Amino acid sequence: MRMYDIIEKKRDGSELSEEEIRFFIDGYTKGEIPDYQVSALLMTIFFQDMTESERAILTSAMVESGDQIDLSKIEGIKVDKHSTGGVGDTTTLILAPLVASVGVPVAKMSGRGLGHTGGTIDKLESVPGFHVEISNDEFIKLVNQNKVAVIGQSGNLTPADKQLYSLRDVTATVNSIPLIASSIMSKKIASGADAIVLDVKTGAGAFMKDIEEARKLAEAMVSIGNRVGRQTMAVISDMSQPLGNAIGNALEVKEAIDTLHGNGPSDLTELCLTLGSQMVVLAKKAESIEEARSLLEESIANGKAFEQFVTFLESQGGNADVAHHPEKLPQAEFKFELPAKESGTVSSIIADQIGTAAMMLGAGRATKESQIDLAVGLVLHKKVGDTVEKGESLLTIHANSKDVQDVKELLYQSIQLSDQSVEAPTLIYDTVSEG
Amino acid sequence: MRMYDIIEKKRDGSELSEEEIRFFIDGYTKGEIPDYQVSALLMTIFFQDMTESERAILTSAMVESGDQIDLSKIEGIKVDKHSTGGVGDTTTLILAPLVASVGVPVAKMSGRGLGHTGGTIDKLESVPGFHVEISNDEFIKLVNQNKVAVIGQSGNLTPADKQLYSLRDVTATVNSIPLIASSIMSKKIASGADAIVLDVKTGAGAFMKDIEEARKLAEAMVSIGNRVGRQTMAVISDMSQPLGNAIGNALEVKEAIDTLHGNGPSDLTELCLTLGSQMVVLAKKAESIEEARSLLEESIANGKAFEQFVTFLESQGGNADVAHHPEKLPQAEFKFELPAKESGTVSSIIADQIGTAAMMLGAGRATKESQIDLAVGLVLHKKVGDTVEKGESLLTIHANSKDVQDVKELLYQSIQLSDQSVEAPTLIYDTVSEG
Repeated sequence: MRMYDIIEKKRDGSELSEEEIRFFIDGYTKGEIPDYQVSALLMTIFFQDMTESERAILTSAMVESGDQIDLSKIEGIKVDKHSTGGVGDTTTLILAPLVASVGVPVAKMSGRGLGHTGGTIDKLESVPGFHVEISNDEFIKLVNQNKVAVIGQSGNLTPADKQLYSLRDVTATVNSIPLIASSIMSKKIASGADAIVLDVKTGAGAFMKDIEEARKLAEAMVSIGNRVGRQTMAVISDMSQPLGNAIGNALEVKEAIDTLHGNGPSDLTELCLTLGSQMVVLAKKAESIEEARSLLEESIANGKAFEQFVTFLESQGGNADVAHHPEKLPQAEFKFELPAKESGTVSSIIADQIGTAAMMLGAGRATKESQIDLAVGLVLHKKVGDTVEKGESLLTIHANSKDVQDVKELLYQSIQLSDQSVEAPTLIYDTVSEG
Repeated sequence: MRMYDIIEKKRDGSELSEEEIRFFIDGYTKGEIPDYQVSALLMTIFFQDMTESERAILTSAMVESGDQIDLSKIEGIKVDKHSTGGVGDTTTLILAPLVASVGVPVAKMSGRGLGHTGGTIDKLESVPGFHVEISNDEFIKLVNQNKVAVIGQSGNLTPADKQLYSLRDVTATVNSIPLIASSIMSKKIASGADAIVLDVKTGAGAFMKDIEEARKLAEAMVSIGNRVGRQTMAVISDMSQPLGNAIGNALEVKEAIDTLHGNGPSDLTELCLTLGSQMVVLAKKAESIEEARSLLEESIANGKAFEQFVTFLESQGGNADVAHHPEKLPQAEFKFELPAKESGTVSSIIADQIGTAAMMLGAGRATKESQIDLAVGLVLHKKVGDTVEKGESLLTIHANSKDVQDVKELLYQSIQLSDQSVEAPTLIYDTVSEG
């Protein structure tokens, strides 16, 4: 078998066999196939796409290129959630204790943030003492005991995906549905979950700007998951503006606490209930989405969801006192308001620019080596569709420096006002499950 | 400027600017742009094609990546001929003295053969003493004196094309009209001709199996030539079977001599007159194709074409005695006939397999290092459309070994007979010139 023939076959529109796809992934991982042949194949995939079968085989080959996490010692159906990334996305902080509180085991492997996208571990580390450096055995014990634990990424998961991603990143082959879908799914599957709920973001702040592209990606990932034996569902949700109101690590933890108390922003609450209901159904803790939603709403109302969060923080060394008294979370030294320059209706909040503004304050990492400031960030007071009077605050800047002029300028550029009335955007566009 | 953006722009269907194409070619030639980005761009070009303007700019950039031959000291309009390659293609041996005999300066830079395709220099070296190792000054002096000379390839012509071709060869991006056309034309233009006649072959023995693909390639090359200021015309000719009857170096020299005397195979003669007429018109030695053809026919009839060949051989050290007595050319020790196994009409002669059979006899090079045997080869007695009786010879094998069983088997597989009547294939499908 020769890589040349595989490129030519795909180039001419034929379906690659399992043997061919595995030859390519194995050979590339072992360094036997050069980058220049792989980039040519990636570009043919960009143009010729892959069948559902090819995508599933590619995903499996990438999963098998490295370590796979064994969660079999955890009782019950382990359900993982993945978001394609956005700004101010606090859902994991809320969903993990929320669904655990109704009996769904949550064994979460999480990462740190880079660029304008936050990382769940960074956010949790706003809680003094909380740490994710636990052993695999400890991790499994905690999930069995408390139904929820979070561990940092470890092991050599999907090295083929890492290699391919680096190459795609410099050859203009990132933006391809079969390559994005197999990349995401390979990481989720190698992480050991039995079932997967996907939150595919669409809009200006998301990778998929367009709803139809987001739908294709959701369908591609659901197909892959189900073909490789992991029940998978997806929600297509809005990321034209930031989700919730808080952007910044400690600020998002406080928002999560509010939401677990039933006092969170309506968009964040609604998305958590939608994703959580799917997780509960996949974990077979409810028979229908409606039943699952009732369970979750009840758990918020009766305080069990919040209690679960407290237990979770304590079990990993966190000082849960901050959960009861969020004012004890890291606080920024200065607060600045951003007054509206005119009256009107908010017509757009450019999510990725808002994320960049928060990063400039120190809430995110510009490079992998950057130190982050857990206290700083932004809290929006107005979302798209809200009216605002001239001089009224659009948002509060939480900063540890007095010099926020650049940030303010970027924020003014990021928030457009209109003199027409504007509808709030749809939050949940669609849900995708096996046909 | 970044290579990434150039790949992405072409991928998304936009036309690249001159600056972008030159950045790519210059950067790749200097080793500043890696193979994996170039192969990704080549694959986007395979799928997205290039505009006529892009193709011309790419060609110019490749020409300027290396040395360019200066033929300005040669008087008159220098016309070069290029064939896209085939089996038994003796046209250059005939055309060079033929058009020179009517006053067209022929300054020919030529190569050696590889695989089943013969090289003009190898063929000429069948003439004892003939050599192409002459200085550039000598070369120019000979053309001014005798109107015709042949020199071996020298200098660092189109290094960008060499690098790109090596990469295309391993990434399944050879078969792309803009890349083939720019590769061929860059070499011709760097070789210094003022005008170019192209012989684009089509059929089983050619690179372009299909007439429509051949037409696209011809149009692409004619457009490039004219855009960069070199008048260019093309003929689309048949290569479904070998051209002429002889395949092998000395055997083709003999066939060239016969043709210059007016006694050559009809297909070879016709193609030479067609290509030659275009060369004469481009050199402004005739005002119309018809006038040019008359001049060439007259030159054959009155012996001037043959005399020109003798002068040419002698001027480069060749013993012209062999031109008068072709039996003094290198002769193979053994001759074997290939009798037809049944009566019928020849329905196909698979050109590339015939070329391979000649190579097995020693007439061609399997690798660049192979030594060739100038005497051996094949002479066809039947072409497609000819009838043959059982036992009648299809061809003569000229060999320096008695063991030709494998060659015979391949030849029998390469020549199909039919009990139906079969038409001889069209020889000249079309001519392409500026629209």
